[in-house]
Amino acid sequence: MKTHTVYKTMLTSERRAFVRITEDVQRAVDEAGIQEGMVLVSAMHITAAVYVNDWEGGLIEDIQAWLEKLAPAGLDYRHHQTGEDNADAHLKRTIMGHQVMLPITKGVLDLGPWEQVFYAEFDGQRKKRVVVKVMGQ
Amino acid sequence: MKTHTVYKTMLTSERRAFVRITEDVQRAVDEAGIQEGMVLVSAMHITAAVYVNDWEGGLIEDIQAWLEKLAPAGLDYRHHQTGEDNADAHLKRTIMGHQVMLPITKGVLDLGPWEQVFYAEFDGQRKKRVVVKVMGQ
Amino acid sequence: MKTHTVYKTMLTSERRAFVRITEDVQRAVDEAGIQEGMVLVSAMHITAAVYVNDWEGGLIEDIQAWLEKLAPAGLDYRHHQTGEDNADAHLKRTIMGHQVMLPITKGVLDLGPWEQVFYAEFDGQRKKRVVVKVMGQ
Repeated sequence: MKTHTVYKTMLTSERRAFVRITEDVQRAVDEAGIQEGMVLVSAMHITAAVYVNDWEGGLIEDIQAWLEKLAPAGLDYRHHQTGEDNADAHLKRTIMGHQVMLPITKGVLDLGPWEQVFYAEFDGQRKKRVVVKVMGQ
Repeated sequence: MKTHTVYKTMLTSERRAFVRITEDVQRAVDEAGIQEGMVLVSAMHITAAVYVNDWEGGLIEDIQAWLEKLAPAGLDYRHHQTGEDNADAHLKRTIMGHQVMLPITKGVLDLGPWEQVFYAEFDGQRKKRVVVKVMGQ
Repeated sequence: MKTHTVYKTMLTSERRAFVRITEDVQRAVDEAGIQEGMVLVSAMHITAAVYVNDWEGGLIEDIQAWLEKLAPAGLDYRHHQTGEDNADAHLKRTIMGHQVMLPITKGVLDLGPWEQVFYAEFDGQRKKRVVVKVMGQ
């Protein structure tokens, strides 16, 4: 059994941004030299998400508008009494999920035809990390 | 360490359907001959979900009605400008989650008394796949 | 490859309660003697959640109020025709997620600076279990 750990630093120029990271995850699998196993991709900060869905610009805008409806910014959240202003980011990331496990088969991410891995930033413009941990043989 | 990978094809007669797949996952564990480890069950299509909850018909209807409220079909989604009509399916699957990891202990799925594994289809009537990847010893 | 399985019993005095369990998970990792791998933390009951987010009291209250808005108690759910009264608990746990996978690096949970692991109870005042399964080397 082998493991391999990569920390990918994210720094988005906008406060909110969705970034495709499928290739970064595959690169970590390649470096690991693992043929059969799984890889965990997990946001290490609690106002960001990692999810799998379609790489289509319209849908990404739909998701962003939908999250704003379900978890609006600018409400009078209790969390803001600490001086923070990002409670909505914590809620948005909760809906999207903060991690995925991807199967690795014959050395390749075993994804369906439209599956892409995304990093979703809800409180960016500062450095954050994603941990990519590969485990297998 | 051993791994075993099964692709289960789903084809629902209705556009939306919830299908219990706990036994299919246990079968993959049996085939793997793995006593201790974990199994990943993940929808390979981005308009379907895999989740764990109760096998009770009323609750399943509650979940479906609730998803329709939180992520309604028929809105003027930007994704539909591509010719698609299933943006709501992408959102519904996001709420439910598209994958689960199940522990395997003494060769058996280590589930609580009411835990059942479901495949939730939100845009069916065509073949889709679920990947079941077992890893352990 | 090694595995180690711990069942943690939860019994909250309130019907709804959020409990930090990061240290319990680290203890299971210590017992396992695993330096590199992953640990699955999963609620074995279907009206409870396991999630990762901030350990800040205001935010926890925000999350609870937000869940009540998205998945209210007291509606006329079909699930209640079975004699149950906890359909909202099933829905709330669905939004929060019922499990997380945590990376283990050099024998320690490989978490970001603010990541804490929580058990979220939505129908408590009775014994429930969380399974903690460590896998690695």
